[in-house]
Parts: sequence; structure tokens; C-alpha cells
Amino acid sequence: MNPPAAKLDALANIRVVLSHTSHPGNIGSAARAMKTMGLTQLALVQPRHFPHPEADALSAGAVDVLQAAQVHSTLESALAGCVIATGLTRRQRGLSHEPLDAREAAVRLIEIARLQPIALLFGNETSGLSNEELGKCQMLVTFPANPDYPSLNLAAAVQIMAYELRMAALGARLPEATERELAKLEDIEFFFTRLEETLIDIRFLDPAHPKKLMPRLRRMFARKQLEKEELSILMGILKQINLKGKVKVD
Amino acid sequence: MNPPAAKLDALANIRVVLSHTSHPGNIGSAARAMKTMGLTQLALVQPRHFPHPEADALSAGAVDVLQAAQVHSTLESALAGCVIATGLTRRQRGLSHEPLDAREAAVRLIEIARLQPIALLFGNETSGLSNEELGKCQMLVTFPANPDYPSLNLAAAVQIMAYELRMAALGARLPEATERELAKLEDIEFFFTRLEETLIDIRFLDPAHPKKLMPRLRRMFARKQLEKEELSILMGILKQINLKGKVKVD
Repeated sequence: MNPPAAKLDALANIRVVLSHTSHPGNIGSAARAMKTMGLTQLALVQPRHFPHPEADALSAGAVDVLQAAQVHSTLESALAGCVIATGLTRRQRGLSHEPLDAREAAVRLIEIARLQPIALLFGNETSGLSNEELGKCQMLVTFPANPDYPSLNLAAAVQIMAYELRMAALGARLPEATERELAKLEDIEFFFTRLEETLIDIRFLDPAHPKKLMPRLRRMFARKQLEKEELSILMGILKQINLKGKVKVD
Repeated sequence: MNPPAAKLDALANIRVVLSHTSHPGNIGSAARAMKTMGLTQLALVQPRHFPHPEADALSAGAVDVLQAAQVHSTLESALAGCVIATGLTRRQRGLSHEPLDAREAAVRLIEIARLQPIALLFGNETSGLSNEELGKCQMLVTFPANPDYPSLNLAAAVQIMAYELRMAALGARLPEATERELAKLEDIEFFFTRLEETLIDIRFLDPAHPKKLMPRLRRMFARKQLEKEELSILMGILKQINLKGKVKVD
């Protein structure tokens, strides 16, 4: 089941930037993680060892991603052409802005990447992103990791982020928040009873031939977005109400 | 920001079972991936080498997970006590049942794991799960990987699945499907124009004092569930329409 190619076009606009990576094996594993999710653009800022046989070995079938990787002497050069730099970081004090969780960030980033290039920035394995590097990021992202051991391997962090971006590109969305006071079921039932009576009263619904009108209305009100046909029904209802409304009673 | 402990209790009911793992380093990396997301129960079925210094090295700060790992000679013994075995697999022909994607599977599994132990089963690095092992799974899970290179490293697969389970335990839900024909924006705008006119016409809306009525209605129609206050508004509208409807025009 291959997804429609256009949906995944955004992935070609995503650059993974690994800054000051110590272990070449991690660069190889990161390349593999990227390719499994359809990311191909890798940029390296002052890697300690690259190219390196260990990077090749751990990239497995993603040697092509390594071979196309660009090595840069500065972060500025690695980010050139991107409209947003997103830094992966642990939750910590003193960050310039609150990090988004990876899922929310991925949805936002894919929206941007459909039009323009973006960068994901991963710091050194031990020290993470420096304050200077963090300062160059317009967005920060974190994982909801175990607070007792939030120490993800570099390639594991790349893997989760690449996975979330692919899910977002494929159309995964965020569930809505539901911190609202919901109507009681019995009140909703009463509403539908009154709605049906009203629709009969204004002669939109023929009780002898009710068809599927009420189940349709129920589904619409139980859901989020209006369908075309539902909208036509609502318009029809309004037209009827309007006809009645033209008769002034006072 | 530590989440409420009770939410994460389900993670203690999740057992990661690695079957016939060839490389001890992968066992160590998998243990690390598990611990970063709060999973601690590791079971190994006939690992080629275990314990092994390479496993310890790659587990980094998760040596405790390795030390508590149970080694089994059979899959049956590794699964004992679990109410469901979930096999991680690539999409392929001839599977007994269609795999779920990892996100949906995680939400379902966490619901079960809140009450009873469950197992995640990962096969050998090269050959994956055998047909016999697949036959012991009541649920299959797959990642929406790049069809040209779906070859995730074992620990990377553990990492994504552990991440999805932690997200689900923390309350992440699935968005609704939207395979529907949606109304066009201009049609929706026209609807709101007519709705407002109608509400004025039937004297529910006073154009001199419109308050927040129309923005409220817009939000309601753009969203999923009716709020109590929205329902009151709709009931009020119906009451008005009914008053007019009582006047017979024919």
C-alpha cells in the first residue's frame, strides 16, 4: 500500500542537521533511521570522524544518504536556505521558549515543509545543543521521555522525529483537546426530539416518509466538520424557516 | 513536568520479548530504548549471545533492564501470563490478519495493559518473526515505513513502539478519520450569512446587540461535540422557530 507520492513531497524539504557528532556509527544509524521514514537530506556540522567505515556499516542500506551528506564547518552554512530551524532538546530550565512535543511539532513542520525547506538540528551525543545552537532555533522539540532516564541515543531521537514527520505527512493529525463542559446525553436526546418535531412542524420532514434525515442530522451534530450534503440539508431547513419567518406575527 | 504516576501504571504491564536476537548490541540498545520511555520488562527467547559486554555497553544507563531480563528457551514461556501477544512485522502477503499501525495499536494496547499484562514480540534482525511466531500473535503491528527501504534496526523499532505506548499512556488519542467529502469554504460562508439573516428574521439575534452569538455558532459547527451552552442556544433557536411555525400559512 504505497501512499500517494504528493502527500510525501514535504519529506524532501526536510534537512536533518547533526552537529558535532562524536561517534561515526551514530551518523550511520541516523542515516538508516532517516531513510526508513523517507528522509534523505543529511547535513553534518564538524563531525569528529566522517566519512568513516563505521558510519557506512551502521547505515546498512542507507549508504546513499551518507554519500549525499553535506559536511559543513559552520551551523549557518548547514542551515542555509531553510526557513525554520528546529532544535531537538531535553526539557530543561532556561530555554528561550517552551519546547513542543514531537507530535505537535511534526504536524506544524510538515505544513511548512510542503512549501519551503526546514531543518531539524540534533546536537552532540553527550552535551546536546549548545546555547549558541539553541539560539539559532526558532522552534524547540522534546520527547515525553522517562524523567528518570531521558537519555535517547542520537539515532533513536532521529528515528522518532522522522517517524512523526512521516506520520504527519501521511495525514496524521492531532486529536482535539476536550477540556470543555459537554452537554448531557439526556439534554441532547431532548434536543433531537424537539428538532424532529420542529422539522415536521415547518414541513421539512414528512413523518410518513422520514427517510434517513434524522440519523444524518444526528451524525452531523456528533461530528466535527459539515459535509456538503449536510450543509445542503441545513440550507434547506433555513430556507423553510425563512419562508415561515416572512409571515410576521406581530 | 512529571506526569501523574497512575497514568503510566500501564507501562509496568508491558513485556518486550526479543526472539532469537543475533547481535547482543541490539539487545542493549533495545533495553536503552525501552527505559527512555518507561518500559522495564525484557524477555529474551534464545538470544545468540547473552549476557554479553556489547549488550551492557549499548544499554548505557539501562543496565538494570538487562540485569532483570528473563532468558527463555521457548516463546510460550516468554509469553506466559500475558493476555495478548502483539507481533511487530513488515507489511507482507499471507499474514493471518491485517497489521494495525503502531499508533492505533498503542492506544488499544494501553487500554488492555491498564488491567492485564501484554507482550510485544520482535523477531530476529534478518528473518523477522517466523510463521510459527506470527501464529502465536493475536495482534500484528507495522510502521508506515518507506516502502523502498522499510528496514528498521531492531532497537529503532522498539524505540518507536515504546514511544507510541508512552504517548498513549500519557493520554494521546487518535484523531477521527476524515475520508468524507467536505463542504466548500465558500458554501459554508454562504450558509453562515443565511443563518445570521434567518436568526435576525426570527428575532433570535438582535443586530444592534449581536453579542458573541455568531462566533459561538461558528465554533460549534467547526467542532466535534456540542457544548452545554451551545445546546441551549440551539434549543432557544428552535423555540423561536416553533413559535413562528405555529402560524400556519396555508
